[in-house]
Amino acid sequence: MARQERAIRTRRTILEAAAAVFDERGYTSATIGEILDRAGVTKGALYFHFGSKEELAVGVFEEQLAITLPPQSSKLQELVDSGLVLARRLRSEPLVRASVGLALDQGAMDLDRAQAFGMWFEQNVQRLAEAKAQGELLQHVDVAETAELLVGSFSGVQLLSQLRCQRRDLERRVVVMFEHFLPSICVPAVLARLDVSVERAERVLAEVAEVAEGQVLPAPA
Amino acid sequence: MARQERAIRTRRTILEAAAAVFDERGYTSATIGEILDRAGVTKGALYFHFGSKEELAVGVFEEQLAITLPPQSSKLQELVDSGLVLARRLRSEPLVRASVGLALDQGAMDLDRAQAFGMWFEQNVQRLAEAKAQGELLQHVDVAETAELLVGSFSGVQLLSQLRCQRRDLERRVVVMFEHFLPSICVPAVLARLDVSVERAERVLAEVAEVAEGQVLPAPA
Repeated sequence: MARQERAIRTRRTILEAAAAVFDERGYTSATIGEILDRAGVTKGALYFHFGSKEELAVGVFEEQLAITLPPQSSKLQELVDSGLVLARRLRSEPLVRASVGLALDQGAMDLDRAQAFGMWFEQNVQRLAEAKAQGELLQHVDVAETAELLVGSFSGVQLLSQLRCQRRDLERRVVVMFEHFLPSICVPAVLARLDVSVERAERVLAEVAEVAEGQVLPAPA
Repeated sequence: MARQERAIRTRRTILEAAAAVFDERGYTSATIGEILDRAGVTKGALYFHFGSKEELAVGVFEEQLAITLPPQSSKLQELVDSGLVLARRLRSEPLVRASVGLALDQGAMDLDRAQAFGMWFEQNVQRLAEAKAQGELLQHVDVAETAELLVGSFSGVQLLSQLRCQRRDLERRVVVMFEHFLPSICVPAVLARLDVSVERAERVLAEVAEVAEGQVLPAPA
């Protein structure tokens, strides 16, 4: 295995261990020692990648956004895709779940949770600004307001889905959210062409996996 | 003071004490003993009103919904009013703040938090069903889906506002939320007449206070 690839795997192992420990104990009670035990790596390896517990939390936050989705001619479709894929990943990837758990952990006083929402907000702002530049948005749309609403709304919707049914209906709820938002921000000709469906996330993720298979070295036996 | 009025005041004192203790210690760590100390009432008085810690939590939940707003000819206006007034009360009333805090307290494993959202959901369903019956909603609207989205979305929006600026901009964020939702559910002739503004909550609450002054006995000196 190339040195760089090994480093990527180690970083991933540490992040997954940190996510599990944050999830079980809460951010405040979690210790670097527990994360080391869980990851089975040396202190040196951990500190090579992450300087502190807070940097580990930021790493977990970043994981939520660290996925490259297939580009679409409609930037609003990309926005919808990112929401639907996040819903799907929240159900299947513990690391993404931990990211949201951390962001909503009201006991984590010493963690800058606004940072997590900030990164997500910026990503939405960028997509909406691109959509606006190519004429997909109605004239009155305030990109920052809509981006912030999406972040807040999605957070609450997933929280309620978690409480009601362990997120089993999360994709459906996110579709409902977009169905309510989009007609107020999107020009009709674009709206009519958007794919906002529960099955969309699976298809997008399958495409992501195909691209990844073509690019990444095969996993070791 | 009439006996009934005294009972209402005692109940209120106990609820406020419970809200403060839940807020400071979290639901799980809070004890009935602490709530008694804070309220300065006897154990008998507390158990006359609330049979358990969970009943106290339900009492705090109910407080969020226990306000009668002036009836409007548009039921959607009533829905908007309830959202805007809740935003205003979240900023000014500790008991309402505690209610939301409890509902979002992920550490409160032994509390049926879904119940809090359930009561709020039912209230939204009722208003939306009335709006639909009198022709205010577009034909395709699924009342239950929209009601559930509103509950989830509002929860997340207030959470983000709390994190960003201690809820200072909450009314504005709730206005933005309604501006994004309403065009997708409301017939245009009703939409054009709705008052969805940051100042609306103050006006509605002033009306509520006027009505209350005419009805309730003066407070004791």
